[in-house]
Amino acid sequence: MSIVVPTTKEERIALIRENLAEELNFDIIEKIIDAGGSPKIYWGTATTGRPHCAYFVPAIKIAQLLAAGCEVTILLADIHAFLDNLKAPIEMVDHRATFYRYTITAVLEAVGVKTDKLKFVLGSSYQKSAEYVMDVYRLASVVSENDARRASAEIVKQSNNPPLSGLLYPVLQILDEEYLKVDAQFGGMDQRKLFIAAKEWLPKIGYKERAHIMNPIVPGLQGAKMSSSDPDSKIDILESAEAITKKIRKAEAIPKVVEGNGVLAFTEFVLLPAAGLRGKKEFIVERRDEEPLVYTSIEQMHSDYANDILTPQILKPAVSKALIELTAPIRAAYEASKDWQDITLKAYPPPEKKVKKVKDKGSRHPGKPGGKPEDKKPEVAAEGAAATTKEVEEATSQVANVSL
Amino acid sequence: MSIVVPTTKEERIALIRENLAEELNFDIIEKIIDAGGSPKIYWGTATTGRPHCAYFVPAIKIAQLLAAGCEVTILLADIHAFLDNLKAPIEMVDHRATFYRYTITAVLEAVGVKTDKLKFVLGSSYQKSAEYVMDVYRLASVVSENDARRASAEIVKQSNNPPLSGLLYPVLQILDEEYLKVDAQFGGMDQRKLFIAAKEWLPKIGYKERAHIMNPIVPGLQGAKMSSSDPDSKIDILESAEAITKKIRKAEAIPKVVEGNGVLAFTEFVLLPAAGLRGKKEFIVERRDEEPLVYTSIEQMHSDYANDILTPQILKPAVSKALIELTAPIRAAYEASKDWQDITLKAYPPPEKKVKKVKDKGSRHPGKPGGKPEDKKPEVAAEGAAATTKEVEEATSQVANVSL
Repeated sequence: MSIVVPTTKEERIALIRENLAEELNFDIIEKIIDAGGSPKIYWGTATTGRPHCAYFVPAIKIAQLLAAGCEVTILLADIHAFLDNLKAPIEMVDHRATFYRYTITAVLEAVGVKTDKLKFVLGSSYQKSAEYVMDVYRLASVVSENDARRASAEIVKQSNNPPLSGLLYPVLQILDEEYLKVDAQFGGMDQRKLFIAAKEWLPKIGYKERAHIMNPIVPGLQGAKMSSSDPDSKIDILESAEAITKKIRKAEAIPKVVEGNGVLAFTEFVLLPAAGLRGKKEFIVERRDEEPLVYTSIEQMHSDYANDILTPQILKPAVSKALIELTAPIRAAYEASKDWQDITLKAYPPPEKKVKKVKDKGSRHPGKPGGKPEDKKPEVAAEGAAATTKEVEEATSQVANVSL
Repeated sequence: MSIVVPTTKEERIALIRENLAEELNFDIIEKIIDAGGSPKIYWGTATTGRPHCAYFVPAIKIAQLLAAGCEVTILLADIHAFLDNLKAPIEMVDHRATFYRYTITAVLEAVGVKTDKLKFVLGSSYQKSAEYVMDVYRLASVVSENDARRASAEIVKQSNNPPLSGLLYPVLQILDEEYLKVDAQFGGMDQRKLFIAAKEWLPKIGYKERAHIMNPIVPGLQGAKMSSSDPDSKIDILESAEAITKKIRKAEAIPKVVEGNGVLAFTEFVLLPAAGLRGKKEFIVERRDEEPLVYTSIEQMHSDYANDILTPQILKPAVSKALIELTAPIRAAYEASKDWQDITLKAYPPPEKKVKKVKDKGSRHPGKPGGKPEDKKPEVAAEGAAATTKEVEEATSQVANVSL
């Protein structure tokens, strides 16, 4: 697969900027490009639940950054993942970090981007070092509780009685910029408050401020009705072709409504730019008894969708087909890698057989010594239900916690 | 100098308990004593300003603990001290920690206690280790912001916009119990909320809860009118005999009022128990043309003071005399130690010469190139003003932050 590599400064900058919602201190990146250099950019993700299709949104931007000659560091925030669920043993978190590395690499290779300027760093490789920790202490001394609360407002789960760690996370994430020695951090618009804090905080302890680039918040592929407890509501990166077709068929896509339309948004932020990276920015929608619709920009698609020329009925099969094509090399890489398969089992062990509670009919006194208050009866796991409810919840919390 | 060493279990326990305001889980200590063992107890202090006479209050309790056969660890919280004033270079903080070690050791030796079961630990020796840091992260994940705020309410400076570090301090102080491998922590009643939190928090991350013993909050030797910006308001541990006499003469001691009387409190919590440790719990007040008053308990003294038999006029010289006697070996140790003297200069360098601003009389245009807007005129430092205002403020903040 060939990839279109931008050659001029203007092309490189345009590719870095494509589809961004906002930039802060972009001149830092521009200056490096002007000098013919490679801006160092980092993106972080907590290695919790299995990556699903929403991960394609940052992944495409990362692919564009790599294609534009940036050095990209992906922080696998294993300590954060461990803290997010202290019940998960640390070994499982390690396996999940490895699983993330396999998956993200395969995703980037699937869009044909070279990964020689991509590196993965485990948070645990430096977030426990003496230097880092002193900086955590120092930053916590010059930053107020209020500042920390503001910076973390959109990236940690909000509650009436939040854990203290929620105030520590922004301190860590901001220090990561210094410790990963990057010029910029990339994240979703949900990171905006934290990125603004980063600009203010790092100079307080003598470090330089970085550039920040932000993706828009993109509606989920399956629409707003997506339920965190319904395993059907997410498309796993390794989902089978049949499951992709079935899940996209069930996705919410209100006719003529462009706003909040996850299927259109996925086309805009994943399928079209992925096609662009692979050499031809084009999205084809087959029609019965008519010529196919061929789109080269999202504006045409939005217009046709609003006018019901592009209907959900013809859009969905086109999206399924494109997503199946996009993920085919990922599935192939998975099938070919015994290591990746082994890690998957350790990272996300199959759910324990569920037990069905049988009501005590009163034949035994409850709690009677020797009595068995519950008959255990194995229940066949639903087809395709690879994740336990807990895991799906984790994956959801991760979306909330992670820069997409 | 000989010291009275308790021999029976009951005597040991009575000495540990003497003058305490409160105990939590004291049975942990009792069990170890019952088994003939040595309870391990820690006390922490941030190594900021020069230790002054208020330090005698915890020091006497520490001396009693040592005399009762406890192993005492003094945590010299250098990281806390560094964070308390990020402007002080880390080397100066190191020297201050050394100064504290010299001073505390001399104080304990002054009351004749053996220091073979005393050890000093620098916070920086373990508070930057990977294990400790992971525990900081873990504890921050299971403890709420509100819990942290409650635990630190009385030990960190309160303000409308407090630094985040204030919420981290209780996490660190509570983990110290585990990392110093102690059975109990000793502190002032201002630590009560933190100690209660310690009982609750440590088991949340799989560590056992410790015992806690608390000194009462003792009014300052110089009374409530003590000003943090007045260098005369504190008596340095190394103060000269003359200065001690002068400062105690100026101390607030309302006739007949026992409550809040710092001079009486100092007698109760320092001078009487120090005399007890040295073999004879007795406090003598000389009178003109009368037999001296000889006290062996504070109750007698309180009663006589309330009835104006023991007047401030005769109490103060007696307290001065006893304090001068108590501190004589400390001054002697200081005079004999070139190292200690050297460290003092590095830990608390003499104040910069103050400059007196001379008003510009209009003879030069303000800011005119080559013009000198201020004439610098050295000012002779006031006699006895060993500490700058900043240092005195630090010393005050330290009292607020430290378990006394």
